[in-house]
Amino acid sequence: MTDSIAAHPDRLLPADPGTRRIARELLAEVEGLPILSPHGHVPADWIAEDTPFPDPTALLVSPDHYVTRLVHASGRSLAELRVGGTDDVDSRTAWRTFAEAWPLFDGTASGYWLRSEFEHVFGLPSAVVDRLQDHADASYDAIAAKLAEPGFRPRQLFRDFGIEVLATTDDPLDSLEPHALIAKDESFPGRVLPTFRPDAYLNVAHPAWAQNVDRLTAEAADGAAGYTGYLRALENRRRHFIEHGAVSADHGVRTPLTLKLGRAEAEALFEKARRGEATAKDRDVFEAHMMYEMARMSVEDGLVMTVHPGSSRNHHGPTFERFGADTGHDIPFGIGYTEAVKPLLQDFGTAEGFHLVLFTLDETVFSRELAPLAGFYPSVYLGAPWWFLDAPDAMLRFRSAVTETAGFSRSSGFIDDTRAFCSIPARHDTARRVEASFLARLVAEHRITEARAHEIIVDLIDAAPRRVFKL
Amino acid sequence: MTDSIAAHPDRLLPADPGTRRIARELLAEVEGLPILSPHGHVPADWIAEDTPFPDPTALLVSPDHYVTRLVHASGRSLAELRVGGTDDVDSRTAWRTFAEAWPLFDGTASGYWLRSEFEHVFGLPSAVVDRLQDHADASYDAIAAKLAEPGFRPRQLFRDFGIEVLATTDDPLDSLEPHALIAKDESFPGRVLPTFRPDAYLNVAHPAWAQNVDRLTAEAADGAAGYTGYLRALENRRRHFIEHGAVSADHGVRTPLTLKLGRAEAEALFEKARRGEATAKDRDVFEAHMMYEMARMSVEDGLVMTVHPGSSRNHHGPTFERFGADTGHDIPFGIGYTEAVKPLLQDFGTAEGFHLVLFTLDETVFSRELAPLAGFYPSVYLGAPWWFLDAPDAMLRFRSAVTETAGFSRSSGFIDDTRAFCSIPARHDTARRVEASFLARLVAEHRITEARAHEIIVDLIDAAPRRVFKL
Amino acid sequence: MTDSIAAHPDRLLPADPGTRRIARELLAEVEGLPILSPHGHVPADWIAEDTPFPDPTALLVSPDHYVTRLVHASGRSLAELRVGGTDDVDSRTAWRTFAEAWPLFDGTASGYWLRSEFEHVFGLPSAVVDRLQDHADASYDAIAAKLAEPGFRPRQLFRDFGIEVLATTDDPLDSLEPHALIAKDESFPGRVLPTFRPDAYLNVAHPAWAQNVDRLTAEAADGAAGYTGYLRALENRRRHFIEHGAVSADHGVRTPLTLKLGRAEAEALFEKARRGEATAKDRDVFEAHMMYEMARMSVEDGLVMTVHPGSSRNHHGPTFERFGADTGHDIPFGIGYTEAVKPLLQDFGTAEGFHLVLFTLDETVFSRELAPLAGFYPSVYLGAPWWFLDAPDAMLRFRSAVTETAGFSRSSGFIDDTRAFCSIPARHDTARRVEASFLARLVAEHRITEARAHEIIVDLIDAAPRRVFKL
Repeated sequence: MTDSIAAHPDRLLPADPGTRRIARELLAEVEGLPILSPHGHVPADWIAEDTPFPDPTALLVSPDHYVTRLVHASGRSLAELRVGGTDDVDSRTAWRTFAEAWPLFDGTASGYWLRSEFEHVFGLPSAVVDRLQDHADASYDAIAAKLAEPGFRPRQLFRDFGIEVLATTDDPLDSLEPHALIAKDESFPGRVLPTFRPDAYLNVAHPAWAQNVDRLTAEAADGAAGYTGYLRALENRRRHFIEHGAVSADHGVRTPLTLKLGRAEAEALFEKARRGEATAKDRDVFEAHMMYEMARMSVEDGLVMTVHPGSSRNHHGPTFERFGADTGHDIPFGIGYTEAVKPLLQDFGTAEGFHLVLFTLDETVFSRELAPLAGFYPSVYLGAPWWFLDAPDAMLRFRSAVTETAGFSRSSGFIDDTRAFCSIPARHDTARRVEASFLARLVAEHRITEARAHEIIVDLIDAAPRRVFKL
Repeated sequence: MTDSIAAHPDRLLPADPGTRRIARELLAEVEGLPILSPHGHVPADWIAEDTPFPDPTALLVSPDHYVTRLVHASGRSLAELRVGGTDDVDSRTAWRTFAEAWPLFDGTASGYWLRSEFEHVFGLPSAVVDRLQDHADASYDAIAAKLAEPGFRPRQLFRDFGIEVLATTDDPLDSLEPHALIAKDESFPGRVLPTFRPDAYLNVAHPAWAQNVDRLTAEAADGAAGYTGYLRALENRRRHFIEHGAVSADHGVRTPLTLKLGRAEAEALFEKARRGEATAKDRDVFEAHMMYEMARMSVEDGLVMTVHPGSSRNHHGPTFERFGADTGHDIPFGIGYTEAVKPLLQDFGTAEGFHLVLFTLDETVFSRELAPLAGFYPSVYLGAPWWFLDAPDAMLRFRSAVTETAGFSRSSGFIDDTRAFCSIPARHDTARRVEASFLARLVAEHRITEARAHEIIVDLIDAAPRRVFKL
Repeated sequence: MTDSIAAHPDRLLPADPGTRRIARELLAEVEGLPILSPHGHVPADWIAEDTPFPDPTALLVSPDHYVTRLVHASGRSLAELRVGGTDDVDSRTAWRTFAEAWPLFDGTASGYWLRSEFEHVFGLPSAVVDRLQDHADASYDAIAAKLAEPGFRPRQLFRDFGIEVLATTDDPLDSLEPHALIAKDESFPGRVLPTFRPDAYLNVAHPAWAQNVDRLTAEAADGAAGYTGYLRALENRRRHFIEHGAVSADHGVRTPLTLKLGRAEAEALFEKARRGEATAKDRDVFEAHMMYEMARMSVEDGLVMTVHPGSSRNHHGPTFERFGADTGHDIPFGIGYTEAVKPLLQDFGTAEGFHLVLFTLDETVFSRELAPLAGFYPSVYLGAPWWFLDAPDAMLRFRSAVTETAGFSRSSGFIDDTRAFCSIPARHDTARRVEASFLARLVAEHRITEARAHEIIVDLIDAAPRRVFKL
């Protein structure tokens, strides 16, 4: 027993003593399993070059929009946290601002992860973590000292965290040299896999779309031009990614719409967009068609297709202009999958080996649409609760919403989707505890046998991501 | 105590010991009550002719799209399960395929019902049921042997299951002879009631609509023609159903939209549709108007009106073409009731004796729309959680969502909505256990008295369906 | 221990004994705190004039559409409850009708509040409250006798209830004399604050809009006319409210849409609407623009802006015609905030001192939109669960939906939003118990420390409403 909530062996487990006992035993099955992270945003460079992490603020605060947004909501400027490369204040001052805001994080997923990192990765005493606002300098210094130790280099942490697979997210024109470097190094046991993320080449509304397409075609179309060259280049770069170990292609689309256009119509829209004459409607139609094309390519080359729709990116214009993208104001909205993915699923829904992992920020589609889709189509998998939803209560709501329709075999396994490298163990630990809690309740309610629950939790944590992401 | 989850006396009850004790006592009030099933899909022929059930696969697997869809999602063809009348494999082989997929069903509603049927109806040992995948042939043979016994004829099971009322779902032009036969047989105590389901005559988008309308008018319009004849024929067939014991008319509509058109406008749309010239908009408008007309007829003839909207039927074209309808790929989407039913409720919302039972596959409308509607309009009743939602967690979410606004008096009572005859006891047992669980929590939280909870559970299980469906 | 659920010390607390123990201690922190009610509908006259309440029916039944709607749903006419000033029956007869319907209220929020009032305010024995239907006359007489006592005058109850601040809701042209009277009376310790509610002057679809605007401009525009005068008058009346203690302006809009029009365009639409020529589209656009203008004024004058969208008011036309507005048939529908409030937040989202409290009747926006918005914008606060959602389960769903994203610092504090004066203590007591229950679960699951939970509950109950509403 301990006073530290981050170190408490029963943290996140259900309060009912009988259910907790079952959950503890389920958790014991999976606590030691390696971490599989088939979708995330850690830069491959970090692992390839094994450069020491910079200061605590640069590692844990400034780039983490989960963290900075709540401090911002309390009335502080993002510049006080050195967001977006700003340097109005020094790192220690920014850390003090963060520490002052620490009580705001109680009850949040970010707060829980940070607390876990502080205690488990950086060894801060729980008394410091409980009241970080009173220990700003001490905690800054303690973390900074740790970061200077050789044991705190990315590769050692990778090993200490028990990571087996870590997928990054990469631009289609990325050389993937860091990935190649890591793969060649036989002394490093981890797999670091690139992920093909072509949003900036598919989203006609992207300000640099035409320019991106030109570069893509010039570099990768084998000399072909126009729409033909565009498709050829995408196919070629996917092959480049596969050669570097990629297992999936990821799509951050505004809506889940898909459409199948005839060749001539698609080509005409492409040319219209290239001339800068596409209407808003044209753009939506073309992008929806390109989702269809991406599915076709996935059927052909085997890359798992993941779809992340439903966020209004960069909601606050002035903040975007000053601090750039991914600064905490991407706001979800309601979506519908059922009609939107129908065109794609007509042709590819039962295609051999095709894996389509559908994510949502709109919880209403879990029971209404995703569980029924994944409960019929062999290609469709339930993306794990993502972003604002990768937290204990939300993950339990997800399981409750989908299991009765789709069982346990149709979900993707946990996705940490993070650029906060040091939070990875805490995030996977959270997921394991939540799965144990959900299964324990079903056992306590005599809805599944305890023996099966022990098999299922291993499947969810280990076999599911391997199976779904073809690891 | 027992190792079998299907036979465990506390199955589905809350884990907290104090709450479980209250739930057990509430359950004891209703465990022995007869089954009232005012909406479902069991064919009346089965009961009328009392023919033995065919083999285990034909009874329990092939026609049950709840079951086949999950096996399909795991990568097996529906042909391997003899779906849609296919006979690529024999029944035993199909059963082996199903048995192999058995672990997929853990945690699902279907898995729970099947497990209950296997143990409680067919007497399979729990060790076999726990690992059906290892006992495919043995379980097939055991069930087949049971089905050959005289005690496993439909009528005897009907009695053994404790069914008092079973409603079927029927085409408006159905003769209803099986119902008449059963009603005439004084030796059979059960009531088997037809339900008027005119979708194929109201949905202009139905491929056979024009043909259906011709047949309807020819057979039942007393010689009247056109729109007048159409309405007359519908009224006449409703009367025919009422004469055969029908208590309700059921409407499987795409959306819940209702509209009141003037006579001339309705007639013009009808004629346009009959000529095959209706636009998509015309069709929606005409159907919405026909919902208004159906309500009018219900006000006049007393048939309870039930509405089941919000499913995109036959989502996967190729599967529909090969295996037909109801093969596991009807996928729900988001709906809104508030504005949609306003035209109908303006005129009939407070009509004497009118009962309108609204169902949804979109859980968001429970607290937002259905509870407020049913909490004001004397005609509106909350349809029980249906289809993907008739499972323990979903039913608890339903009660939590509606009770604080609408109390316990405005719900329809449990609806099994099934064609899986042998699952009926398990489904009603599930509902009774969930109601007991929900009420027990309210008692434990001192929100209702234990005495009232005992009255309420009897009302929910027994009095509510009688009252709402005029049984 | 007691048999009365209304008096039970553990009412509404979680059933699990360990969690309940934690909850009890959390509750003890806040049970004695004063009531802060920054948004509601009690008439200021009552307090100003301190007139005795009329009979039980007029106080507790006829004006409370939470109560009358369920009786109506059971098949009784609203006239039987003397709704909307009707007097077809006398008060005692109406009370009997209500008492007969009493069992319908089990499990509802209204039933819980009424039970609490009956026992705690009016001292009815729990045996009477348990079966009010058997004690209609006795309960009527007992309450009537209490109402005749001097201790049951509004001011004494105000004190006895422990109310410190009570906000009313008022027409922009209201003189606010009652508020002035109360403020001047140094013997009365409570603060009764007006709230600026300009719906009838902003909603072009309101039947009296043009007339209202004329009156407003004539009385308050300092001689200015047209759109200029209209804005000036609104600004002037806001100042009048502020001078009388107002802290907020409230907006009961149909949808949350906001738009920023250019001056010329806004003026042209205003004039078009004044001429009665505005289309439905024009009306929506103009109203959305006026929300933008209201935000601008709030930024300038400091009034907290509260927004209550998403209800289809007066859903049943015939009832509205006979009994008037607020008679139980305002029905919620689905909304989306993310895109709707973007125009307003572009310009004012980070404005110094601006407070925008967003309410919803559509629970889906809690986790999807409101928590992310409030978790970034310093101006945005999560409105407490409102109307159909201010009940124990719904409030727990709210906390579960928003906390993991937005923590505890971004919510408004409890809002009773009621005209049922005697229900105020029960409503705030409910909220305190629910907050204690939610926090206790997080403590039991080792997600927050018990020490922090004790700080947080005081913040939620006391500091949050003071901070958010600038009390």
